[in-house]
Amino acid sequence: MPKETRTVPDFAQGNGLLPAIAQDAESGQLLMLGYMNQEAWDQTLATGQAVYYSRSRKRLWHKGEESGNFQIVKAIYLDCDADTILLKVEQIGGAACHEGYPSCFFRKWNGSEFVLEGERVFDPSQVYDKP
Amino acid sequence: MPKETRTVPDFAQGNGLLPAIAQDAESGQLLMLGYMNQEAWDQTLATGQAVYYSRSRKRLWHKGEESGNFQIVKAIYLDCDADTILLKVEQIGGAACHEGYPSCFFRKWNGSEFVLEGERVFDPSQVYDKP
Repeated sequence: MPKETRTVPDFAQGNGLLPAIAQDAESGQLLMLGYMNQEAWDQTLATGQAVYYSRSRKRLWHKGEESGNFQIVKAIYLDCDADTILLKVEQIGGAACHEGYPSCFFRKWNGSEFVLEGERVFDPSQVYDKP
Repeated sequence: MPKETRTVPDFAQGNGLLPAIAQDAESGQLLMLGYMNQEAWDQTLATGQAVYYSRSRKRLWHKGEESGNFQIVKAIYLDCDADTILLKVEQIGGAACHEGYPSCFFRKWNGSEFVLEGERVFDPSQVYDKP
């Protein structure tokens, strides 16, 4: 029964990185998709907060470390193939997206193009340092 | 304003493949994560049903083509970085997972290991041909 014994994230399937979805534990709203490596996974379990691996910064990324918008992990799920992680979280600050929206999925297809949906919770220029 | 003009999935960011999340449009339950290339995306728009790219079979995968459990697309969202797609779907047959569960995320972390959560909707051996 090989499938039933794959009860840990199989990071090798993603060459070390697996997608990790964050969903609001209360509302069910999809918040974002990040990536985790083994260390991010271990840190998420150890801290009870979402820790991702930032592909652009090439380092661990404790979500909220800059904005204060941490994600408190309420539940963790693994999919059938053990290659996708789902976190149900309490999103501190009410916004997961660095652009200030509650969800990173703030663009909705209207049949011919993507249009903005939803309102900003914060102004990114007031939260993040400019280079 | 380069970010505001990225209003299509940027498949180049994923070397041609982007993660595509399917969420039940009614209940908000996370169903699965697949991958799309440009052709899968085009086919999804053209058919109104979820079409993924199967990394294992290395071909387009019209979800439900074998099981009959198609996904009727109710809404499509794109994330801030234009590198993740979210489909809100009606899951025909009530089960997204090839293992017979409503959701592929049927393993929940109990603090020390993943344990099964949820009941099978169908018996995979009755739905899929065996090789």
